[in-house]
Parts: sequence; structure tokens; C-alpha cells
Amino acid sequence: MIKNRLKQLWAEGKPTINGWLSIGNSFTAEIMAAQGYDSIGVDLQHGALDYNGLLPMLQAMRASATVPLVRVPWLEPGIIMKVLDAGAYGVICPMVNTAEQAAEFVSYLRYPPQGSRSFGPTRVNFAAGANYASESNGEILAFAMVETAEAMDNLDAIASTPGLDGIYVGPADLTLGMTQGRLPPAFDREEPEMIEAIQRIVAACKRAGIAAALHCGTPAYAARAIGWGYNMTTVSNDVRMLAGAAEANIKKFRELTGGSSVSAGSKGGY
Amino acid sequence: MIKNRLKQLWAEGKPTINGWLSIGNSFTAEIMAAQGYDSIGVDLQHGALDYNGLLPMLQAMRASATVPLVRVPWLEPGIIMKVLDAGAYGVICPMVNTAEQAAEFVSYLRYPPQGSRSFGPTRVNFAAGANYASESNGEILAFAMVETAEAMDNLDAIASTPGLDGIYVGPADLTLGMTQGRLPPAFDREEPEMIEAIQRIVAACKRAGIAAALHCGTPAYAARAIGWGYNMTTVSNDVRMLAGAAEANIKKFRELTGGSSVSAGSKGGY
Amino acid sequence: MIKNRLKQLWAEGKPTINGWLSIGNSFTAEIMAAQGYDSIGVDLQHGALDYNGLLPMLQAMRASATVPLVRVPWLEPGIIMKVLDAGAYGVICPMVNTAEQAAEFVSYLRYPPQGSRSFGPTRVNFAAGANYASESNGEILAFAMVETAEAMDNLDAIASTPGLDGIYVGPADLTLGMTQGRLPPAFDREEPEMIEAIQRIVAACKRAGIAAALHCGTPAYAARAIGWGYNMTTVSNDVRMLAGAAEANIKKFRELTGGSSVSAGSKGGY
Amino acid sequence: MIKNRLKQLWAEGKPTINGWLSIGNSFTAEIMAAQGYDSIGVDLQHGALDYNGLLPMLQAMRASATVPLVRVPWLEPGIIMKVLDAGAYGVICPMVNTAEQAAEFVSYLRYPPQGSRSFGPTRVNFAAGANYASESNGEILAFAMVETAEAMDNLDAIASTPGLDGIYVGPADLTLGMTQGRLPPAFDREEPEMIEAIQRIVAACKRAGIAAALHCGTPAYAARAIGWGYNMTTVSNDVRMLAGAAEANIKKFRELTGGSSVSAGSKGGY
Amino acid sequence: MIKNRLKQLWAEGKPTINGWLSIGNSFTAEIMAAQGYDSIGVDLQHGALDYNGLLPMLQAMRASATVPLVRVPWLEPGIIMKVLDAGAYGVICPMVNTAEQAAEFVSYLRYPPQGSRSFGPTRVNFAAGANYASESNGEILAFAMVETAEAMDNLDAIASTPGLDGIYVGPADLTLGMTQGRLPPAFDREEPEMIEAIQRIVAACKRAGIAAALHCGTPAYAARAIGWGYNMTTVSNDVRMLAGAAEANIKKFRELTGGSSVSAGSKGGY
Amino acid sequence: MIKNRLKQLWAEGKPTINGWLSIGNSFTAEIMAAQGYDSIGVDLQHGALDYNGLLPMLQAMRASATVPLVRVPWLEPGIIMKVLDAGAYGVICPMVNTAEQAAEFVSYLRYPPQGSRSFGPTRVNFAAGANYASESNGEILAFAMVETAEAMDNLDAIASTPGLDGIYVGPADLTLGMTQGRLPPAFDREEPEMIEAIQRIVAACKRAGIAAALHCGTPAYAARAIGWGYNMTTVSNDVRMLAGAAEANIKKFRELTGGSSVSAGSKGGY
Repeated sequence: MIKNRLKQLWAEGKPTINGWLSIGNSFTAEIMAAQGYDSIGVDLQHGALDYNGLLPMLQAMRASATVPLVRVPWLEPGIIMKVLDAGAYGVICPMVNTAEQAAEFVSYLRYPPQGSRSFGPTRVNFAAGANYASESNGEILAFAMVETAEAMDNLDAIASTPGLDGIYVGPADLTLGMTQGRLPPAFDREEPEMIEAIQRIVAACKRAGIAAALHCGTPAYAARAIGWGYNMTTVSNDVRMLAGAAEANIKKFRELTGGSSVSAGSKGGY
Repeated sequence: MIKNRLKQLWAEGKPTINGWLSIGNSFTAEIMAAQGYDSIGVDLQHGALDYNGLLPMLQAMRASATVPLVRVPWLEPGIIMKVLDAGAYGVICPMVNTAEQAAEFVSYLRYPPQGSRSFGPTRVNFAAGANYASESNGEILAFAMVETAEAMDNLDAIASTPGLDGIYVGPADLTLGMTQGRLPPAFDREEPEMIEAIQRIVAACKRAGIAAALHCGTPAYAARAIGWGYNMTTVSNDVRMLAGAAEANIKKFRELTGGSSVSAGSKGGY
Repeated sequence: MIKNRLKQLWAEGKPTINGWLSIGNSFTAEIMAAQGYDSIGVDLQHGALDYNGLLPMLQAMRASATVPLVRVPWLEPGIIMKVLDAGAYGVICPMVNTAEQAAEFVSYLRYPPQGSRSFGPTRVNFAAGANYASESNGEILAFAMVETAEAMDNLDAIASTPGLDGIYVGPADLTLGMTQGRLPPAFDREEPEMIEAIQRIVAACKRAGIAAALHCGTPAYAARAIGWGYNMTTVSNDVRMLAGAAEANIKKFRELTGGSSVSAGSKGGY
Repeated sequence: MIKNRLKQLWAEGKPTINGWLSIGNSFTAEIMAAQGYDSIGVDLQHGALDYNGLLPMLQAMRASATVPLVRVPWLEPGIIMKVLDAGAYGVICPMVNTAEQAAEFVSYLRYPPQGSRSFGPTRVNFAAGANYASESNGEILAFAMVETAEAMDNLDAIASTPGLDGIYVGPADLTLGMTQGRLPPAFDREEPEMIEAIQRIVAACKRAGIAAALHCGTPAYAARAIGWGYNMTTVSNDVRMLAGAAEANIKKFRELTGGSSVSAGSKGGY
Repeated sequence: MIKNRLKQLWAEGKPTINGWLSIGNSFTAEIMAAQGYDSIGVDLQHGALDYNGLLPMLQAMRASATVPLVRVPWLEPGIIMKVLDAGAYGVICPMVNTAEQAAEFVSYLRYPPQGSRSFGPTRVNFAAGANYASESNGEILAFAMVETAEAMDNLDAIASTPGLDGIYVGPADLTLGMTQGRLPPAFDREEPEMIEAIQRIVAACKRAGIAAALHCGTPAYAARAIGWGYNMTTVSNDVRMLAGAAEANIKKFRELTGGSSVSAGSKGGY
Repeated sequence: MIKNRLKQLWAEGKPTINGWLSIGNSFTAEIMAAQGYDSIGVDLQHGALDYNGLLPMLQAMRASATVPLVRVPWLEPGIIMKVLDAGAYGVICPMVNTAEQAAEFVSYLRYPPQGSRSFGPTRVNFAAGANYASESNGEILAFAMVETAEAMDNLDAIASTPGLDGIYVGPADLTLGMTQGRLPPAFDREEPEMIEAIQRIVAACKRAGIAAALHCGTPAYAARAIGWGYNMTTVSNDVRMLAGAAEANIKKFRELTGGSSVSAGSKGGY
């Protein structure tokens, strides 16, 4: 089986950068996979796509050296096993709040005796090389998301779940959950309480000997997170990068030509 | 019928900025349509999509104030009329080399007696307001692309084609065609001979009383083109903006963290 | 955030009519959204579509003033949160039989501290206007379906679930469930026991201060339901309306021309 | 090869009714095919679909007894042969203005020596029964559309084209073309000059021994056309039937409940 | 309602052969349905497709006499009821380990009073004939998969679940589960312990008066299973048959021409 | 730019085997690309797919070493240039009957000054490596199909068209065309007149210094063709291989179990 490069890079102490796909399209996947990300996550939770959109994206990314990850909508065995059979080399599960949930999650990713995954790697057989049945338990990454107050209370228990490979932190939900809506959801937190929480998670991961990953908005914040000990950072996503680049171009054009913009997003005649 | 805002803006002497979609996806279309472009062109010629991808994109852009344009693959009546029925407010036709071709192109966009378009605005009926049958001949924009040596020889004849609304310039093909491959194809030409040609086209448009549009790579070049008299400029496209933003993020991350990139685009194991 | 017009209309005491989409197609959605429904529900439960079909339908309806609702297949958090992120302004959940289930359902629709929804309004951000994070808890409608004997036993407890906005009644399942199959499933019940049950539900809604909605087959029955106090009625659906109109045309043609119909639905040669 | 029932019905002097699909969806196709139409045309010209939408529609109609017809976007050999290989039992070609065009059209539908169709019935092999290669030339219907002033001038020449099976009349284009825009395009013409033209076409068909077909808006007009000698009439289409039924339901609901409609089609907030 | 031919064949003591679809495509479904399988299962669990791919496949198979079965991803009510509404005449549920799970599974397939299925046969209404509401409880087949050590411990309890129609055996998971990974997963087991287990299952089915089905790799093994008392065998699947035929052709070509193969599956330049 | 391996292999005198895809699906493409074909042709002419199906197939084949070819529906510039931009390394054009048509075809595949291809390699840029603009004219293969009596009359003129890389022979059309329907269309001809024609074509190719390719049904016939001097042979296709393997399995099962088959392809109840 083709080795999971993320595991190798982390073993060498190298930080990795992860891309993020929220658009359901095989061409955007192919474009992103050509840019040099160490891994790319396809987001079936908040992204505007489902399994049907995922499959051709995994195929379009296969020719690159990028490790394909998938965030599933929820801790539901049906979709978790489907994304594995489709070719995911790692699964990110949202809203893992207890050690029991973490253990359940891990079990869905492992064939017996380590877990309860059902066997049928129909498509991944074509993408992962030989010996998938015997080697995949050791290559597929299991990421639990810690993003609620409850999960923070159970942090060490979750982190020490046998077979769990890492904790993936979504700062927006973590902020909403920990502050019960007092602070608005967003990436790249600067509030001391949130920075402390984000650092507390990576410390727990170190204690448990697993990886820590943080979803960030900018390379600068990502670099800070790497400095805090995070192994992997996601930097922005396809939607934000596309919108941001377009907005910047339009703004620059308006400045240079003196034209005034149509009101973006207005509902009206053409 | 909802008026074509491009015509109104140009009548007021305002320059416009056009977005460009080469990815076949209704969500990227919706994202782009929210940024404030005066118009957006969907590229059925070189874009990675066909009619099947176009329809939901036009639907997703409808709630915005952006004027939807479509570049067709070739001067073929079947697809030209289909994109109009789907909702295009303007059609860009590649490789129009003679006045006869320009006249043929215009005829496909106009109902009798001005042209030979077949009647059946099945979907556009839901997007363009009342009186489409009687008013669309006056609202739909016809752009001929001048991008070969032959077309440059026929420039004034093409520009003066009755019913033609504008000339759209693709600098890559224009360069390839005029220099017979001596200069490589690209946007934002700096060679004096190419700048001269680009200026010659806008001059011909002014003489003929039609609009001139130029496909550019950057806002800076677009602003120069506006200064030369161009009415509309396309600035980059979805593919380049997404790839460029991703590449910049990765580069910045590598710089800040000292990590070395995987070789982008390499074919290898994950 | 763009306000939910249903809430406004009901606050003014106005009855509303809801359309229903069981066909997975963005053009049928656009057609229906142009007819003047106050809201339209897309049926991911019994309709012939899933999330992949839903997304372009929500996009195609966006340019209209119709409030988009979605019925989910089941009380499953993954799909409920996905349809919200895709743009639903209300969710209809089938087979809510207890107050506990109703509370669980509501929690999936609300961000903390009111609920446990995960944050990531990736597509709805483009359709709902500003401040979605802070205002959506107050705009998104939660409809529980009461359609079993068990649910009828728990009617008031369900209706008084904090955060629940309404009860949606499916007469077919309600009949099957309450009579344990004694009466056949269908809309527009005339049996006294079923009318009594339908009236009992709206009474419970009034007591709880929430809205009541009924799925009907005809405008006439819908008007009766409005008379009973229902706030919203769904009248027929795309499948039935299309089939009904076609059947009527064919029947009329046969009558007028004396031709005999081919046996509809027969399996045979062309 | 399964026989073409239209040919049999016409041979028996029976009028036939044709359905019309402008929505690209396999479920609407299956619904319509269950209603009892003698044949159903899928409209790749003005309909909101292309080949990609057509294929599953032909598959979904196969279990019924309805004869599948396809209108192609234009007299272009690529798409004509593709719809035949996909399973069409008849092709309707728009804008056939001369006998030469009619002959060219027919040639694309027939294998040598009658024509120049290329052999490869990849999918139709599964739907049409045995001996497609030797029998399809005799079963596939070729309909030329006569809908311009030029075509009317060439009416008898077109009608007598060897191998042509019928003329299909689109009243909207015919009106636009014959009156050069003086009369607005629509079905079910009542102007004497248009009725005369429509009758002139069927007379030419009778002289040439081929079938005549008319696109109508209502069964009543269709019955009149049958009375004039037409063999086949199309009555309305999926889009109009769905929109009409929805509009009628809403209107009735508003009348019965006293509510006022939101302005249909308005662009605004939800 | 059209009768379920599998039930009839088994009642006559006839063994049946089931095809298997892991590719999400309506044309492969139509091709397979034309070959003469008694039934065909579409695999939403390990197959590379979801509901969106399933629907047109069921439509494409409808014209054949093949009974359509669907394997769902997991014991989840949402998807189970959706595949029934889409037209499945039988559902195969993976990983049924206890009698409670078997009873829950059966309940999702039956309308009250036998179960808790929600009523809305939107598409199957067009495929299954009249009286679906009253007759489907008796026609739809419920297959539980027994494929773990726990399920083997509960074999008789599962088999005797009221309403269960059969047990479907997946030898790969059964081997993994029973041997806890000691033996590799595959079809067509030859180990005495596995043959014993496979025979034990069919014996339990006989005792309970239900059908037994086995997934096999070859007709030869399938025939052995029939000899052991199995009623239905699946033989290979679309993926394996296509790959196997292609591989054999290439190998033969290389042998005959002396050419050496490119390394299949290598990642490299074209 | 990644080199075209077919050119390299032919330069070394090695025969090559080409796969053939008539099903529009990215997974079947990925499966086939893993089997070891030197090249694979996607058939947009007689295959059941169009551009929309092609794109993800080219993406799914990219990770393999197989050279991607595309057969276009007809000699139409729009689709020819689109398949090149999508990633085709060779184009097969049907029904090339004259040297003029051959020259026109070649011109669509080459950038100026060799041809008139329009520049915009939007997707192929991600698949073909650097310098596509300057090197693609030398890597992209142009195959003209000789398959009519007229083409045979012009054989040497066609073969000597500057820039043409090969002639691709479709025996079915060639037989239909040369015998004007006297012999039925099929692969693997045994009639002396057809073998002579097939040999005449390869001789013309040798004289012109271009490649010869033959579509075959079996490896055995392909090997004979290689013996006659053909450089490339296509052996069967996805549809036939899948159907053939399924049919063989069913037949074997029936023989071994004594069961009688349902009548394949019959239209009837389940």
C-alpha cells in the first residue's frame, strides 16, 4: 500500500500544510492538488457537496502527491466507511465530545480485530496500491474534532483513545462552544482565552503522542500554530481564496479606473 | 425585459470589469457573482465545461446584478442559440475572421427580421422579465473575437457589421495568429507590435461605434486598456485566481515554517 | 440577515401556501419559484433526490421571493446541518414521536447556546445576507412532523418544545399510523376521526403558540384547513401537478379526436 | 427490431398525441411516459438540456410504450447521430429551409446505401431489439421543421425529399418568419393567414405522402389540427403544464383564503 | 403491484443468480439488466455511488425483468426508506449483529402496522404497478447480512426475526470477523472453518423458513453454494468482470504480439 | 510537456493495444486505465456520453501511464478543440473522406503556424507538464478514420496529408460503406474483399510514413492486424466486455445449477 506521507513527515518533525475543498468539483480539486499542499481535505460537513461530488475529486487528486483527507458530516458509520472505500487516507470527524465517541469513531476506520469497518475497498483498491486489506489500518488517519466545552472537559480522555491519530481543531465551533456564543465564530482567534484553549489542545496531543491540527485563515496564523507545536495547519479554503482574489481584483480595478462598483450581492436587474 | 446593464454603463461612459468562469460549477458561479463584477463570462470554449454545466451557473448568478455572458466554442448555430435560451445576455464568438462570419454570427442572435434565431426562450423566460420576444434583439450583446492575422486584415469590415455590439480581444490567440507562433501566447502583452495591434482594434471599434473588450491578466493592465479606450476588461479567471491564491499561501507557509514543499504536480505516492 | 417572510406573514395573521418539490432538478425549482408560492419545500425524504440535487435547486430559487424549506429524510444530524448550510430557511423533520426527539431536532438547528449546530454556513452565506451567525437562530424554522399514534399521544409535549416553530402534518402517514393500516394513506381526509385528529393538532399548536402546517392535495381542502386555523398549507406537488395536467390533456385530446389511448404505463414495444 | 408504433398508428389512420420534454430530468421523463402519450419528444433545441440530460431520459421512458423522439439543436451531423445511437426512434430537425437541407438531414439518419449515418448503435442496441442494423432505416422517423418564409417557398420540394417521413410545424417560428416579426410568436394561431399556412403545409404533406405534425398549446387546438389532416400533434410541454397547474392552485388558494400573493418572480428577500 | 419474481422462483425451489453493481452509471445498469440475471443488487455500501447514482440505474433497469435490490450503507432509516421509495424490491442491510437490529431493520421496510416505514412511494409508484400501499409489505424483501462473530452467535435469533426474508452472506467480512483478521478477506472460501460457517448459516435459514444468499466470485463456487441449499448467489460484480475481461484481452494480445506491457497502474508520464 | 508514449513505442517498432470507453463514467475509466493498455480511447461519437462525461474520465485516467485518446462525434471544430483542452493526447475523427477534410481536421489540432487551433489549454495545463504551448503540436496525434468508399478512393491523398499522424479503421462502417450495405456491419472481417481493403489501408500508411490503427473484436484478430503491419489495435470495448463476462457467468451458473434463465431483455414484470 502507498504510504501515508503525512505520517512520514510528522515522524520527521516536519510541519505540514493542508488545503481545504468546500466546492464540489473535480477540476477545482485537480487545480488545488497541483499547488503543493502536503494534504487536502474535502469537506462533506460544511462544504457544498456530498459523496457524489467527492468521488471524482479523489480521482482527480490521485495523480498528485497530495494526501487526500475527508471531513464527514457527522459521526455516522455509513458515510465514514464510504469515504474510506472511495479513497480517503484520513477522516476528520466533527463534534467528538467524549472518549466513547472517539473510540466509536476509530472503530469505523479499522478492520477487525482493531475495529468494525466492513470490507469492500472497491475504488480505493485502484488508488492505494497492494495489500490494502492488511496495511490500511496502519495508514488511515483518524482525526477527532475537539470543538465544544464538553470535549474540552474530556480532552485527555479523547486524546488517549487507542488508534486515534490526531485532534483537528475548528476554531469557529470551539469559540462558539466554549463561550456559549459570547464570542463570534471565526478563525485565527486573538483572545487570550481562545489562544490558551488552542494551546491546551496541542499540549494534550503531545502527552498522548498524537498529532494536532488547526484550521487557520492565514499562513501567518498557521505559522504561529506550528510554533505552538501543531503538526498540521489548514490555511483558508477554496471558497475564501477565490472570493478574496476576485474581490481584490475588482477593488484594484475600481481604484485605477475611477469606476464605482455595482453593489455586490444586490438582488436586482442585470 | 430586464435591461442589459452593460449597455447602460457604456452609454454613460463607464468602464466595466468582467469576471471569467472556466470551472463548471454553480457554486463558483454564485461566489463570483457576489463579488461585484459588472458582468461575468462563462467560457464554453476553453473552459472545462459544456452546456450541461452552464445552465445551473446561470441560475446561480441570477440573484445577483451581474450580467451573464457566454463564450461559445465556435461559430456553430446550435450552441449559440442554446446559450441564449438558457439566459445569456451576451455571446462571445471566437475566431471571427471575416465580415461574412460576423454577419452570420449576429444573425444567430436575432429573431426575424433582424436575424434567423429560432424562437423558444424556455428558461430565459424565467430570468429576463416580460417581453423577451420583442425586446431581446435590442438587449443581447454580440461580441466577435478578433484574434487572427486574417481578422486583423478585415478589422474594419468586421467592426462595421450591422448588429454587432463589440469586439472581444483574446491576446493569446491574437499574438499566436499575428506572429505565427514567433511570440508565445499569453495575456498582458508588452511588445510594441502587440500593443499597437490592441490599440488598433479599439480604434476600429470607436470608428464603428461599438464596444471594445480585452481579456487581461491583472487589474493594472486592465486599467491601461481602459485608458486606451476599451469599454470592458476581463481580469484573470477562476482557475488562475484560485491557483494563485493557493500557491501564495503555501509559499508563505513554507517561508514562515522553514518546511520544504512537496514537488507540486509530481506524480507519486501520497 | 434576510428576514424569514413566513414568520412575518404568520405574525400578520396571513395564511401561506407552500409548494412542494419531489423532482431533483434546478429548472423545475426555478419554474415553481416563479409562480408565487410563499414558500417551497424540497423533499429529501420521499422526493426522488438527495443533497446533490438540492443545492442547485436552492440556488435557482434564490432570485425569487419564495422561502426555501427542506424536508430531511430522518432525524439525522448530518443531513439536517447540511441542508441548513446549503441555504434552507426551515427544516421539516419526519416522524417526530416524542418531546425528546423534538428537542434533539431543534438543537441541530441552533448554534450554541440554544443548540448544538456546527458552524460553517459556507453556501448560505452567499444567500442570506449579513450576520447569519448571530441571527439565524431566530430565522430558521423548525417543523416537527406529527404523524404517528405515538406522536399524537405526545402532542402537547412535542408542541411545547422550546425552539420548535411549528408542526407539519402529513395526512398519509398520520392515517396509516393512527389507524394501523385500517384506512389507506392519502391526502385530504374526509373521515371524521381523521378530521378530528387534524383539528386536534392545530389546537395544540395554538396552545403552544407555534405554527401549524398541513400537506393537502387541493386548494379547496387547503382553504378548509386554513379555516381550521392552519397557518400554512402545502398544495399538491410537482409530480402530481405534472402528471395531472398531462393526463388531462391526453384525455381531452382522445375525447375530441376519437382516438383510443395506448395503455398508459404498459410495458411493451414502442 | 421493435416496430415504430407511430408508423403503425398513422397507417391505420389514427391521430396521435405527442408529449414534449424541455426539462432535463429522468424522473419527469418517466412521469410523462406513464400518462399515455403515443410519443414523447425531448427537446435538445429550446429545452434546458443537452445530450447528457437526454440519455437517462430515454432510459427512463423505455419501460413505457411511448415512442421516443428527439428534436436536435440544428442540422449538425454530430448530435443527430448521437441521439440516434442513444435510442431516438425519430428526429425532428429545426429550420429546414431547402430540399438540399432536407436531403442532407435524411442522409444522417440512414445507413448506407440510403444515407451516410455512421454505425455504432451502442445504447440503442439494448432498447430496440434485434436487427437494428438492417431494420432501423425503415423505422426511424425523419421530421423536417418548416418554419420560415424560405421553407414555405420550398414546401413541396422539401416534402418530397426521398426518405423524409414528415414535416413538423413550429407555429411560433413560422409566424415570426412568415410575418418578419409583424405578429408575435406563439402557439395556436387564429390569424387567417397563419391558419392558411398551417393548412397549406398539411396539404403538401398529403401530396407527398408523408406525415404532418403540429406543435399546439391546447387539446382543443390539437383536435382542430387533426381535423385539418394533421397526423400528430404535440400538446403543450412539461414546463407550461407544471407552471400552469401551480399557478392555478395558488390562484385558487388566494381566492378561497383571501390572502394576497407575493409578487411572483420578484427579486427580493425571502 | 408487480409481483416479486424472486419470491416466486424460490417458492418453486429454483435457485437464482444475482448481479452486482458497484459502478454508479445508468448504462452499466441497463447493460447488466439485459443479460438475464434473476435480480441485480446495487451496492450503496461499498460501491462507488450513492442515492444520486442509484435512481437512474433503477429507472434504466425497469424495462427488464430483473428484480432490483439495493444494499444500503448501514442500518440507517433515512437511506433505507429512500431506496424503497426509489424502487427497490429488496434491501440488503450490512452488519446486522443482533435480533434487535434485525427487527429494527425489518420495521423500516414495512408500513404500519407491521413496521414504521413512512409513506411516500413517489417514484416507485411509477414502476411497481397498482396497490403499492397495500401490497408492498408482502413483496419487498428484507435481507440481513450476517458477517461478524457476534452475528454468528445470534444466528438463529436473527434468522427468526418476524418479517425477515433472508440472510445475505458476505464472505469477506465474515472471514475477517470470525477469524479476527487471521484469514484475509476474500470470496469463495476453501478453509473448512469458513465452509462450515457458510453451511451453518444456510441451515439456520432453513430452520427459520427464510432464504439464504451468498456473495460468490465464480459460477462454480455459486453452484456449490446452491448445492448447500442457498437460494440465491451473487456472482462477481461489474468492476471485477470489466477489469478481468480487459486484463485477459491485454495479456492475450501481449502473448500473441510479443510486446511487453506497460506496468499497469504505474504512476508516470503518458 | 509529458511525451506521447504512443509515438515512442511506434518509433521503436512496438505494437500497441488501445482500450475503448463507451460508458460515460470516471470509475470505469479508472478501472480500465489500471489494466495496462498503452492507450485508451474515449468515444464521444458512438459512446453513450458527451464532453460532460469525458472530463472526469480524463482526470481519472491521469494517474496511470495510459495515453488518453478521444474520438469526436464529427469533423466539427468546437468539440475537437474542447477535447484537446480537456487533455486528449490524440483525436480520432470519423468519416474523413477527402484530403481537404483531412487537412481541415489536422488544422484544428495545431496552433499557428501549423494550424488554426485556438489557445486556452485550461485543464490540460494541469495534466501535460510544462511547455504545452510550444510542444503540443508535436505530441498530439491526429487520426483520420477511413471508412467509406469515397475515402478509399482518396486513400493515398488522405494518408499524405501534412500533419496527419495515422489512419484509424472502423471495420463496421468500412464494410457498410464499401459494400453499400451488402455485408452487415461488424468487426473482425473474414471476407477476402474486406481483408484486402484493410491491408490496402496499412500499405498506404506505410507509404505515407504514418501509423495505422484497427478496431478489432478480439486479441486474436488484433494480432493478425499487427502481423499485417498495423501499429495499434483497439480490442473490444467496455460495453462488450462487461456484457460478455456477465453473460458467460450466467450461462455457466445455469448449466451448473440446472436452472433456466429468465428471458434476457424481455420487457415484463419484475
